[in-house]
Amino acid sequence: MSGKVLLVGAGPGDPELLTVRAARALAGADVVLYDALVDRRVLSLAGRALCLSVGKRAGKASMDQRAIEATMIRAARAGRAVVRLKCGDPFVFGRGGEEAIALAAAGLEVEVVPGVSSAIAGPGAAGIPVTHRGVASGFAVLTARPVEAWHATVDALPPGALTLVFLMSLSSRAEIAARLLRRGWPAGTPAALVLGAHTERQWSWTGALAELAGTALPEDRRELPGLLVVGDVVAIADRIAAPISSEDHLAIA
Amino acid sequence: MSGKVLLVGAGPGDPELLTVRAARALAGADVVLYDALVDRRVLSLAGRALCLSVGKRAGKASMDQRAIEATMIRAARAGRAVVRLKCGDPFVFGRGGEEAIALAAAGLEVEVVPGVSSAIAGPGAAGIPVTHRGVASGFAVLTARPVEAWHATVDALPPGALTLVFLMSLSSRAEIAARLLRRGWPAGTPAALVLGAHTERQWSWTGALAELAGTALPEDRRELPGLLVVGDVVAIADRIAAPISSEDHLAIA
Repeated sequence: MSGKVLLVGAGPGDPELLTVRAARALAGADVVLYDALVDRRVLSLAGRALCLSVGKRAGKASMDQRAIEATMIRAARAGRAVVRLKCGDPFVFGRGGEEAIALAAAGLEVEVVPGVSSAIAGPGAAGIPVTHRGVASGFAVLTARPVEAWHATVDALPPGALTLVFLMSLSSRAEIAARLLRRGWPAGTPAALVLGAHTERQWSWTGALAELAGTALPEDRRELPGLLVVGDVVAIADRIAAPISSEDHLAIA
Repeated sequence: MSGKVLLVGAGPGDPELLTVRAARALAGADVVLYDALVDRRVLSLAGRALCLSVGKRAGKASMDQRAIEATMIRAARAGRAVVRLKCGDPFVFGRGGEEAIALAAAGLEVEVVPGVSSAIAGPGAAGIPVTHRGVASGFAVLTARPVEAWHATVDALPPGALTLVFLMSLSSRAEIAARLLRRGWPAGTPAALVLGAHTERQWSWTGALAELAGTALPEDRRELPGLLVVGDVVAIADRIAAPISSEDHLAIA
């Protein structure tokens, strides 16, 4: 037996939004390698495991990518139950594909456990559906780096054709807004910022695209993962009365 | 007390891919209104609830949209714990926004429980990451109806700029492929079809964009929910050796 590694999506933060399978994987893990932004409450489910932070905050990994892969391979070959825990879904901007390739090349079995992605659940946490009949029939998920990639998309897409969701891009929000306005998106297009979606410290702002560049983030929450949504669907949030709170758990359970 | 309704994402099929919160919501529900394509194994978690199929297969609802909303409102006002169970995530092509607006307008509290969306986990089930460094820095999620919406996106986007994921669009695959080829996507662009992702009957095909139109779906699986992926990320699947099987559950648990 050559060993197995699980690449597991941790979801957006709230441990209730882990999948059943992810919760079980954590409970059974010997070793967990987790990204810096994974919620502490999620990690606490890996009761008996050795939990290693492998960093990745603002692009800087505390452990080099090759070292992460080598650690997983070594632990799996030693017969340990290894979980690689990633924010959201492993295949959305998480280098999950790269790690899966490295593990497969080392002869290990890889199981990918998908997670709730903040690309969809992040807007949802602020009451924003990424699609809505008659408003948006599709959405694009983008990130600010490399700039060539989002520039090519934004310069080509007709304004309003898709809901735009930018992950890991808050520090580029002025540049994103300016480019969309130049492309012809109306200044009044609804836009939203969401920090720490589905965590206890969630913060959100909604307004107009033209106001986005001047919007300050709360000083005490800048380290939270954040996202940006642009499109008419943002206005739907006002029509869904109930705020979605991560603390407002199931009264019916 | 005016009542509460939970709009719950059922994920792609495998009950292990429900969120912890969704599983708890089902266990505590008095009434569950579910879409036709929700997996039977997921429904079985709603042990004590009255489960009502509200249809929606190939665009046809067995219960009219207004009737669905009226049923939820009546049951919630009568003090029942009501779960509206939708495939994938409630805010991705699920009319979740519309239902949330109707419930809020009726004075009910609405909680949206996000789910694992097949827009991301569907490609993932076939080993395809929707993003991959150096290959795709973003993705678009589209559907074949209304045609004007996906036409506007596909005609504008530079070939290869984003991974394209089409949901509920398999019967339009020849039309989609033809339009992409006309737009300049190379005939050899990798493409995939996935039916019943993360269910016991999962089937997938990968090949070239130019072959997509002529690819037959297996007769016995045409009723399964399906999706189409186009982009160079599809070729990553070959480099991730291990197939991801919904039956291959956690040996470590």
